[in-house]
Amino acid sequence: MLRYGAYSPDVLERLHWMGDVLGPLLQAAVRGHGPLDVKAIMAQMLQMGDEGHNRNRAGTSLLIREMVPDLVESGAPSARVAEVVRFINSNDHFFLNLTMPACKIATDAARDVPGSTLVVAMSRNGTDFGIQVSGTGDEWFTAPAEVPDGLYLGGYGPKDANPDIGDSAITETAGIGGFALAAAPAIVRFIGGDVAQALRSTLQMYEITLAEHPGQQIPVLDFRGSPTGIDVTLVGRTGILPRITTGIAGKVAGIGQVGAGPVRPPTACFSAALARLSDLSG
Amino acid sequence: MLRYGAYSPDVLERLHWMGDVLGPLLQAAVRGHGPLDVKAIMAQMLQMGDEGHNRNRAGTSLLIREMVPDLVESGAPSARVAEVVRFINSNDHFFLNLTMPACKIATDAARDVPGSTLVVAMSRNGTDFGIQVSGTGDEWFTAPAEVPDGLYLGGYGPKDANPDIGDSAITETAGIGGFALAAAPAIVRFIGGDVAQALRSTLQMYEITLAEHPGQQIPVLDFRGSPTGIDVTLVGRTGILPRITTGIAGKVAGIGQVGAGPVRPPTACFSAALARLSDLSG
Repeated sequence: MLRYGAYSPDVLERLHWMGDVLGPLLQAAVRGHGPLDVKAIMAQMLQMGDEGHNRNRAGTSLLIREMVPDLVESGAPSARVAEVVRFINSNDHFFLNLTMPACKIATDAARDVPGSTLVVAMSRNGTDFGIQVSGTGDEWFTAPAEVPDGLYLGGYGPKDANPDIGDSAITETAGIGGFALAAAPAIVRFIGGDVAQALRSTLQMYEITLAEHPGQQIPVLDFRGSPTGIDVTLVGRTGILPRITTGIAGKVAGIGQVGAGPVRPPTACFSAALARLSDLSG
Repeated sequence: MLRYGAYSPDVLERLHWMGDVLGPLLQAAVRGHGPLDVKAIMAQMLQMGDEGHNRNRAGTSLLIREMVPDLVESGAPSARVAEVVRFINSNDHFFLNLTMPACKIATDAARDVPGSTLVVAMSRNGTDFGIQVSGTGDEWFTAPAEVPDGLYLGGYGPKDANPDIGDSAITETAGIGGFALAAAPAIVRFIGGDVAQALRSTLQMYEITLAEHPGQQIPVLDFRGSPTGIDVTLVGRTGILPRITTGIAGKVAGIGQVGAGPVRPPTACFSAALARLSDLSG
């Protein structure tokens, strides 16, 4: 709930626990383990029904498998190790904490190529949706964010939803999440829609991307690489907008997450970026 | 390698280690944990790209997640716990050790229904393939086993393969494995064939089974339950034989596993069972 603006006493308590217990123990385990191959886990999770944004159960499971021996050998008391493993176990999205920075690093590598029409960031602050493009430096092209349309938790409904928020759309920017929906048919039980839509969604994203990711293969599409690298020109030409699978935040501060579902960026971000690229080349 | 007739010194050493270290530690963890919901993990693994016979990576990962806190709190030294977790980690098929007995218990519950044409066991001993049917008690209907045709490990090839062997076909008897191949498109990299064949294979099994398993759903088929409960009458009427995804044993004793791939039972098992059912009802 932390990422969606909740700040109740149990959230604050958990934050302190993360700083005092979880962080130091993970640090010790990672130092014992040595570098963790996040890209290899990302490749595997797509073979195991995750799309890497709103379904992360396989990635989280593989991470636990890999880290547990070093957690156990960290020298921490058994009770602490068990507490940490139970905490990670309790949140199937835990691996998203590693996926997002991995995607950010990958897309940052493509920044600042003169004339390039490649999208290198998509982010939302609950009010506006913004994109950055390789050929236009650090400029954000923004427009009012839309409200996701998905499935709601408990008694929440569309009236409780805040407009699109968060930086997790970096996953779609790097070719997973909504772009790899075909790899994760089971996700429709969490975000709505049906399996055919999930397959079509990925197929549609090939029309606005520049490459098929060699390391992120989708088995059901005969191991075709996930559609990767959004091209603002292709978005403009086809009218197809990127598809993002995201969590839905409550619009009242402090409520936290109220659901999850698909959302698209506003068209205006892409047309503004195209116009600026045109200015720069003109 | 143990299950395929290998008996080299390292196999014997590992067997002793399993008796002395792995077994007691798992026992302590299970007692701390309480009953483990194997059926729930089986349901989840089909949502995560396993078919439950020759792909068990998700099942093994979920099992580790669930057991680790109790392994850690078992009181065993950290080094031992780490050793056990590393061992389970090293074998993605570990969960098959729980799936097979679960399938056996499920199918045994259907034994001895007078007149029933339901297959309750399929097994192979490297020479013969045998089936048992609910309405015919403990009698085995056998015929010479076929040689699986799949992908081979290392430098092995078809000439190294022994005829079909083992009791793991109890998984197909219970509606997973080759019957749930559509849930596991990534398995074609291990057993051969292609994704379209895997999908067709499951669809074909609906033609010879009596039910769709409510707990074993296949997301890509819109969560249709896996084809479960082979009917010897339907096999006889359609000529479609059960599809099994199995490991391939080396035909020279001591070599162990040489590959993995699909295999079918001989038709004669089913015609013999049908004839006996006919005798009994006549």
